[in-house]
Amino acid sequence: MNVLIIGGGGFIGGMLARRLAERGTLRGADIGRLTLADLAAPEAIAAPFSVVTAACDISDAAEVRALIADDTDVIFHLAAVVSAHAEAEFETGMAVNLDGTRNVLETARATGATPVLVYASSAAVFGGDVPDPVEDWTGLQPQTSYGTQKAIGELLLNDYSRRGWVRGRGFRLPTISVRPGKPNRAASSFMSSIIREPLQGQEAVCPVDPDFEHYYLSPRRCVENLIRGAELEQADLGMQVNMTMPGRRWRVQDLIDAMTAVAGPEPAQRIRWEPQPDIAAIVQGWRYDYRPEKALALGLTADDSFEDNVRYFLEDAGLV
Amino acid sequence: MNVLIIGGGGFIGGMLARRLAERGTLRGADIGRLTLADLAAPEAIAAPFSVVTAACDISDAAEVRALIADDTDVIFHLAAVVSAHAEAEFETGMAVNLDGTRNVLETARATGATPVLVYASSAAVFGGDVPDPVEDWTGLQPQTSYGTQKAIGELLLNDYSRRGWVRGRGFRLPTISVRPGKPNRAASSFMSSIIREPLQGQEAVCPVDPDFEHYYLSPRRCVENLIRGAELEQADLGMQVNMTMPGRRWRVQDLIDAMTAVAGPEPAQRIRWEPQPDIAAIVQGWRYDYRPEKALALGLTADDSFEDNVRYFLEDAGLV
Repeated sequence: MNVLIIGGGGFIGGMLARRLAERGTLRGADIGRLTLADLAAPEAIAAPFSVVTAACDISDAAEVRALIADDTDVIFHLAAVVSAHAEAEFETGMAVNLDGTRNVLETARATGATPVLVYASSAAVFGGDVPDPVEDWTGLQPQTSYGTQKAIGELLLNDYSRRGWVRGRGFRLPTISVRPGKPNRAASSFMSSIIREPLQGQEAVCPVDPDFEHYYLSPRRCVENLIRGAELEQADLGMQVNMTMPGRRWRVQDLIDAMTAVAGPEPAQRIRWEPQPDIAAIVQGWRYDYRPEKALALGLTADDSFEDNVRYFLEDAGLV
Repeated sequence: MNVLIIGGGGFIGGMLARRLAERGTLRGADIGRLTLADLAAPEAIAAPFSVVTAACDISDAAEVRALIADDTDVIFHLAAVVSAHAEAEFETGMAVNLDGTRNVLETARATGATPVLVYASSAAVFGGDVPDPVEDWTGLQPQTSYGTQKAIGELLLNDYSRRGWVRGRGFRLPTISVRPGKPNRAASSFMSSIIREPLQGQEAVCPVDPDFEHYYLSPRRCVENLIRGAELEQADLGMQVNMTMPGRRWRVQDLIDAMTAVAGPEPAQRIRWEPQPDIAAIVQGWRYDYRPEKALALGLTADDSFEDNVRYFLEDAGLV
């Protein structure tokens, strides 16, 4: 069982690699080799199997051909130019998110070995003039170039799977929280930082009011779902291999209450409430009312409580 | 007002060109020049304005750049490798339907003049695991490569329009009936030939039973809708510029009854009922229950009756 993670240098990709190293198996077989690829070659990890790292610009077809071998059994395609970047640099987004995904699909097809291809899509494919709740069959009406490119990847993945060239399965990721690391300029950055910073004794700014609702998943559960996704049988996916990954809808206040339940009242006092209309305008356009029935039926799961997310963060950050 | 029809050598493209020649105007202005482009240069038509014809392979970016000028005001993009062809030759479909549409979008963007871009999508974008009726917000789950490529074109058109690079509007065409000409190998061929051939004294085969339902539009009404589509204001299109073009749902028996009402009982007797399970398997997977509310609200229309479709065919074919 040879596994490739494209985007293996990213936060989720790295966490997935470490989890695979813990497990040692995938789809019921021992992992023999794990390749971690990213724009810059990721650092290797300790594992009970061979770990190879590679630099690969997926917008370059030849580099992708050098990456995917005839004996690659499972590909996790997590690499993307993210939302704000793809909006600011349209050509870069198209080259990586659209042409890069085509390169991965074409190369996987060319092996003739029908590899399993797990594709990270995003809830950013949703938006526009569609009613709530967002069902598995709700139309994709992205309002960003990133969402557009992810939606195109979904369509191609489904067509390549229908033709029997890959065993594709795509998952639209909810907002991942609590992310480790530093705040960034993403509009969603506060959705992790209002938990992460206060738990480490630092102040954080919340730009929306406590009733703001959104759709969340912990990093750990996301990784478990990607693994579960890789292990699904193609016949169980039906005519549409793309689906929303389960998450949970919570208010900002629910997140803070969970932090208080786990870590006491002090962290919440480090949150500064500072309305930011530009941030609010973006995030209030996002959907939070999802019905991910298909993924739930296939055994993917959401967190039981946001308290779990807080505990996972503390454990993974070595704070407990 | 300079107008370009890409796919101007096709059946709908040619009919649109002749209708524009009759009108002489579009979007409230006199047409100064009409360019008809197709893989082989179409024949020129008589018109009260300048008519230019051009050969253009839209999968070649340089050829598209030579076609779209800075003073092109309205582009009708009707060119496509159709369903069965795109299924048999995947690369050809991707090159024309996907890369070709990207070439048109990029070249239109590069003019800086924000041309109106009318895109012919298809009801083939629908299928799979979605409930009836098919609403404006129903997910696109195409079950062919042609439908996949058309759906990708819709996503790109919406993104280029959102960014203000083109004034895009896309319309998913119902099955067009009664088409002139000869039967072809398309699974839908019988939906025109069971009317067209009997009206001309010839036998036709109907491979499904009289209760088979489908969604139809006459060629004339399709052309009027494309012109109406070109005349819409961008602000009225909202966050989704693609929509289903109105049609009407009829049983095969309704089509035949309409023919009888217009032309008497003899033509219907020339239909041979001959079940063809392979044809039935394909067409029974198609959707027929559409709610094209958005297009109707914007002033696009369906035929009042199939009797009109029969009369239009007889008139256009010079049979009355």
